[in-house]
Amino acid sequence: MDSLMNEPRRGFEVNEFETRTANAQVMMEQAGLSALLFCTEPEVRYYSGFHTPFWLSPTRPWFLIIPLKGKPIAVIPTIGKSSMSSTWLDDIRHWAAPQPEDDGITLLADTLREVAGDDGKIGMPMGHETNVRLPAKDFDWLRKLLGIERIVDATNIVRSQRMIKSEAEIEKIAHICSIASDTFEGLPNLINLGDTERSVFKAMRIDLLQRGADDVPYLVGSSEAGGISDIIKLPTNRILCEGDLMLLDTGAIFDGYYCDFDRLYSFGHCDDASRRAYDIVYAATEAGIEAARPGLSCAELFKKMSDVLSANNNDLGDVGRLGHGLGMQLTEWPSHTTWDNTILEPGMVITLEPGMNYGAGKLMLHEENILICETGARLLSRRAPADIPIID
Amino acid sequence: MDSLMNEPRRGFEVNEFETRTANAQVMMEQAGLSALLFCTEPEVRYYSGFHTPFWLSPTRPWFLIIPLKGKPIAVIPTIGKSSMSSTWLDDIRHWAAPQPEDDGITLLADTLREVAGDDGKIGMPMGHETNVRLPAKDFDWLRKLLGIERIVDATNIVRSQRMIKSEAEIEKIAHICSIASDTFEGLPNLINLGDTERSVFKAMRIDLLQRGADDVPYLVGSSEAGGISDIIKLPTNRILCEGDLMLLDTGAIFDGYYCDFDRLYSFGHCDDASRRAYDIVYAATEAGIEAARPGLSCAELFKKMSDVLSANNNDLGDVGRLGHGLGMQLTEWPSHTTWDNTILEPGMVITLEPGMNYGAGKLMLHEENILICETGARLLSRRAPADIPIID
Repeated sequence: MDSLMNEPRRGFEVNEFETRTANAQVMMEQAGLSALLFCTEPEVRYYSGFHTPFWLSPTRPWFLIIPLKGKPIAVIPTIGKSSMSSTWLDDIRHWAAPQPEDDGITLLADTLREVAGDDGKIGMPMGHETNVRLPAKDFDWLRKLLGIERIVDATNIVRSQRMIKSEAEIEKIAHICSIASDTFEGLPNLINLGDTERSVFKAMRIDLLQRGADDVPYLVGSSEAGGISDIIKLPTNRILCEGDLMLLDTGAIFDGYYCDFDRLYSFGHCDDASRRAYDIVYAATEAGIEAARPGLSCAELFKKMSDVLSANNNDLGDVGRLGHGLGMQLTEWPSHTTWDNTILEPGMVITLEPGMNYGAGKLMLHEENILICETGARLLSRRAPADIPIID
Repeated sequence: MDSLMNEPRRGFEVNEFETRTANAQVMMEQAGLSALLFCTEPEVRYYSGFHTPFWLSPTRPWFLIIPLKGKPIAVIPTIGKSSMSSTWLDDIRHWAAPQPEDDGITLLADTLREVAGDDGKIGMPMGHETNVRLPAKDFDWLRKLLGIERIVDATNIVRSQRMIKSEAEIEKIAHICSIASDTFEGLPNLINLGDTERSVFKAMRIDLLQRGADDVPYLVGSSEAGGISDIIKLPTNRILCEGDLMLLDTGAIFDGYYCDFDRLYSFGHCDDASRRAYDIVYAATEAGIEAARPGLSCAELFKKMSDVLSANNNDLGDVGRLGHGLGMQLTEWPSHTTWDNTILEPGMVITLEPGMNYGAGKLMLHEENILICETGARLLSRRAPADIPIID
């Protein structure tokens, strides 16, 4: 298929990792940090290029340290030595994990002391949308070994870097958005009235893979007569009937980068209330696409979309925000909410995702993925049809 | 296909969740705990039945509390209210996440105080193979709100429960093992000398889905002339040539339960060193299958397998263990290592995964999934062929 022919280059040039590291080091200097410590998949991958689904196994922790100067240092289980050696890193320290008594903690503490000295501050993502991927007991022990006050929050460094995508990152996201657009547009040819939700999910997943997605980690949705009420559901054996509305929301990946958007389908016919609700979220999305440009804040972008919803006297629903960042993770900083004053910048990839309640407990959602360019928004997902497609 | 006809029932009967909760409550009583607190996907799912890939989004934390008596209490983002309402739980408290200033923390602390009083201990998995899935700052704040000494490690409660699978859990794992066995056995008909690694992965992933896997979260492997050296790798565009050995290792899922085993294929012919190494790990696996029975410890099981490897003067390699538990996660407790003295019990599902180094940096692995029964091991994966299949 076409998308296989036009695949972007896999991985990144070494200079991209050099730039990411150098930019982090500038911010470390400004923040008075002697080291950055990471233990989560996106961060380790972002600075090293280490890319494996082995993180699914919760057994072993993995660490990456960025010193003030020079390349990052990996402190990892021996099982990953060979894979890590194929990245741009030189200094790879390893231990024979799993070892519950000391699963890399003293090796990590020693390496951090070597890098940050006896009193240098060590930054780690500890803020919103982050987590510490090692046993709490081990993290407590590490903080005791180093001095609890030495490990400080550095969410902002990685947040500000990862929010702005490079050309190579944008290409990957654009590619998977294009694949998912093809799949969504072709789906009416693959599914029929009388299919089960589960068979629709299967057809969609296989189609995404055939078109060139590496994997489909996220696929949720549901079907109900006259509109849906649960937007994070796995499929059931429910049979799609005349008058049903079905939501499908996917995060497929290409080379470790996600798309994240949804589409609606109606079966047989679409009821008027759902049609009206769709028109409103469609218009709210349109307002978001028109407004999004460098200099606008996420809170202002939220307002552009929520104004359209409010003008129609609608309840904003339960999602808690009207879109978010997108990239190595299905959802990333920033958030389009009243409280997020992040200023949009060129290179940001975001979703626009207005949602609203309608009818008796029904929820209408719409979602597109856009890139912020100097002049405004560029759609990465292909714009949804102005009317909900009807499958019969 | 056949496997679709014989699908086990999805989900669990309510009495399974009641039993899990009641058993946890007995152990809580014994451990002097007034509440258990969970924030990770497998634990929340294990006690509530809440099952969604929405956990892929790192934005929002999710909490489940088990009181000493009664049903678990969910403290979750409002976006999950509808899905959580379809579980057996009654008490679902929610907040409009994301709210970085207080993302559920005071609601959680209030609920914990209500359940555990002013000084009751609160158990949480904080030990090996666990992690705390919320921002470190928020976990610190929660511990400050409640009193840091009140939150204690309760890994052992969930570990001892989750290690022993119920009939319904075993059926799901057996089903996905059977699907993956079919795929592995049929793979020589799908792939050819001259294919790329990437096209093999794609064919395998699609075949697993077609046979009834819900998803294939884990698929790694690599190909090299005369044996492989990296066992956690994603595919490349490398073309499979005469004399290559290829490892494929998959964790496919059915209804939230994993298989985890690998298979080897040689292309054109198989070199003698790889053939000999395969014989040894195959024999080590056989020794493990014969030895595995209730009453044996994991350390003893490790020795049964490592003795076969050592008898052939082999280096055990870099994996750090010769197998592990399997279920809701790709890898679970226990570990077949020198240090894990867990006693095998009926209902445990484990992998046997002997590996060894050979030749110049080559690694030979073999893996099967077994269930511990009263009388010994029952294979869940279909036993690998005694010789590496040759594809040409």
